[in-house]
Amino acid sequence: MNNFEFKNPTKIVFGKDTIAKVKEEIPKDAKVLLLFGGGSIKKNGIYDQVKTALTDFDVVEFGGIPANPEYAILLEALEVIKNENITYLLAVGGGSVIDGTKFLSAAAIYQGKTPWDILANNVRTEVGMPFGTVLTLPATGSEMNSGAVITRAETKEKLAMGGPGLFPQFSILDPQVIASIPKRQLANGLADAFTHVLEQYMTYPVGAMLQDRFAESILQTLIKVAPKVIKDPTNYKAASNFVWSCTMALNGLIQKGVPTDWAVHAMGHELTALYGIDHARTLAIITPSHYKFNFDAKKQKLAQYAERVWKIKKGSKNDKAFDAIEKTENFFKELGIDTKLSNYTDEYEGTAEKIAKRFTDRGWLTLGEHNNLSPDKIEKIIKMAY
Amino acid sequence: MNNFEFKNPTKIVFGKDTIAKVKEEIPKDAKVLLLFGGGSIKKNGIYDQVKTALTDFDVVEFGGIPANPEYAILLEALEVIKNENITYLLAVGGGSVIDGTKFLSAAAIYQGKTPWDILANNVRTEVGMPFGTVLTLPATGSEMNSGAVITRAETKEKLAMGGPGLFPQFSILDPQVIASIPKRQLANGLADAFTHVLEQYMTYPVGAMLQDRFAESILQTLIKVAPKVIKDPTNYKAASNFVWSCTMALNGLIQKGVPTDWAVHAMGHELTALYGIDHARTLAIITPSHYKFNFDAKKQKLAQYAERVWKIKKGSKNDKAFDAIEKTENFFKELGIDTKLSNYTDEYEGTAEKIAKRFTDRGWLTLGEHNNLSPDKIEKIIKMAY
Repeated sequence: MNNFEFKNPTKIVFGKDTIAKVKEEIPKDAKVLLLFGGGSIKKNGIYDQVKTALTDFDVVEFGGIPANPEYAILLEALEVIKNENITYLLAVGGGSVIDGTKFLSAAAIYQGKTPWDILANNVRTEVGMPFGTVLTLPATGSEMNSGAVITRAETKEKLAMGGPGLFPQFSILDPQVIASIPKRQLANGLADAFTHVLEQYMTYPVGAMLQDRFAESILQTLIKVAPKVIKDPTNYKAASNFVWSCTMALNGLIQKGVPTDWAVHAMGHELTALYGIDHARTLAIITPSHYKFNFDAKKQKLAQYAERVWKIKKGSKNDKAFDAIEKTENFFKELGIDTKLSNYTDEYEGTAEKIAKRFTDRGWLTLGEHNNLSPDKIEKIIKMAY
Repeated sequence: MNNFEFKNPTKIVFGKDTIAKVKEEIPKDAKVLLLFGGGSIKKNGIYDQVKTALTDFDVVEFGGIPANPEYAILLEALEVIKNENITYLLAVGGGSVIDGTKFLSAAAIYQGKTPWDILANNVRTEVGMPFGTVLTLPATGSEMNSGAVITRAETKEKLAMGGPGLFPQFSILDPQVIASIPKRQLANGLADAFTHVLEQYMTYPVGAMLQDRFAESILQTLIKVAPKVIKDPTNYKAASNFVWSCTMALNGLIQKGVPTDWAVHAMGHELTALYGIDHARTLAIITPSHYKFNFDAKKQKLAQYAERVWKIKKGSKNDKAFDAIEKTENFFKELGIDTKLSNYTDEYEGTAEKIAKRFTDRGWLTLGEHNNLSPDKIEKIIKMAY
């Protein structure tokens, strides 16, 4: 097991009919900016629940944060924060709204020249404006971590940021919210959380027995609940395990003491930036090729995953490892998620070269748990995913 | 899954040679009271490591906190805190030293008539004097939770306390510390952590699939590392998984959203108070009888535990559940821990009646996850454990 530090101060309020508790978590004298997305919360009743809970608070609203939270729009929200003397942010949404709120939490206090620095230079935020979340779409785990990914349409870029000051003070997770989520987004959430676990698990063994088993626990739970969530999102047992799995998949716990990969996300982000493909679907496109290309480096863990998660008992270690990649690809397909780039765009030729060049230009010369995936290898992996 | 709230702000610093980092975690202007136990830290070098790290700090020492931290001795430490204007507590020890430090954290700020109230009335501590820990004995999980158990020899009582103000600000976990721990205490730590998980798991199913798997992960890991830790505590892979399992067993995570039992601990505490039997050994005495007595109420989970943790595939649900109790008892025995009260004292007759009466006198009329273990049932369980 590698040395590690772990601290996660976010308070989770989890369960049925918990949204009203938002009023107990925000300071009474706060001036609140309520941030949300495209307006689905006004249709599914979540907006009303939050507004009712905050009747006695001074609340300003900012809606319209898009999937892949857009820098230019967030700058408009930043203006509101400054003009209205906002002191507390409340994200009501999924990962995009929460990530956008994290950017605003940092930017509201940032003293540098332009808030773009926070992203361009990956400035670590030690203290941000306090914020909480009401989760409406389980997937990214952003509700219990301190990272965010922000998109800038102008330059087709998707950049990460974070820091210990960007943990939500609280997050309210009512699994009943998934009842109104379209199947496509539920599938995305399942695939996203699944891949988050894989990025922290599918590397090489370092004797972190407990972390491995925790990761496998989340994978097994997601596999079990996935068809139930898709079939009937009002199934509370499935919904609650889905939501808690998404949160635990990326709250820092399972990555402590182990190497992590994250090359799938790095490549996937480019596909979203270039073609607007849903984030989770880009992960499903890249994962199988990535594991095949890096088969030797990952086969110990692939075989363990085969045995423990997929219960594959027969065959050599190589056979098991290979079967596990196939099982993973099938898991995505059974969610209705295509796993080849050509399923999403006819103009895929040249994508691999383009992304490899972007990585080179950005100075990302080594990716993966061994820091040895150079742009030429990235190019090969992406070609395998056409 | 039941509704829950979860927040655990303790910072964990985990790994090889991390004790020196204690200096980065304590405010420079703090006046520190360094608390420790019987002096083993002076023999194994941990004391020197801490003192060297704190060269530039203003440090007062208080040693001699015994196993089952004693109220009367803690009152002496409280005097030191007041007389020396201490502002920060540093526990260097195992669960007893850390629990004692939590009592002091609460008592140093408590405004009531006597600090005994904190225990007698189970006063919830919202804010305590800040403290950190350097763990020297993995077992209780106290290094990452907000609870403590304090003993009062005068009245042969062992009482619990806690509150959100009693999380350590940081805990340093260097698995190398177990190298100098006597086998008897290593066995106790393994049994203690194992039972902590069982108390939060061996109840009845509520559809908390992920929590169940996390609990099973810890049990599987402890079973795997137990013989290795006993055989060679310098085996770092075994040691690090042992330490992290003990912490995760009782940091709140696996109890969220599920019913919990804790009747084994309630009965075990009485055996320690009456006969001075090591805490972990009292749990090994009570557990098998408790599970046999409550077989019907627990058999669903016992059977799941049999299948997933002990890999028992054959037999009816009842058979599996029964076999799992036997496996558990054998696990304790293989650690060298006797599982009958008569192995520890010849004067066991009347113990059951005595404890049942103590529970009645204290108003503890219902224990267990169904709140239906009345003193007459407690009496029967303890008799089964003679």
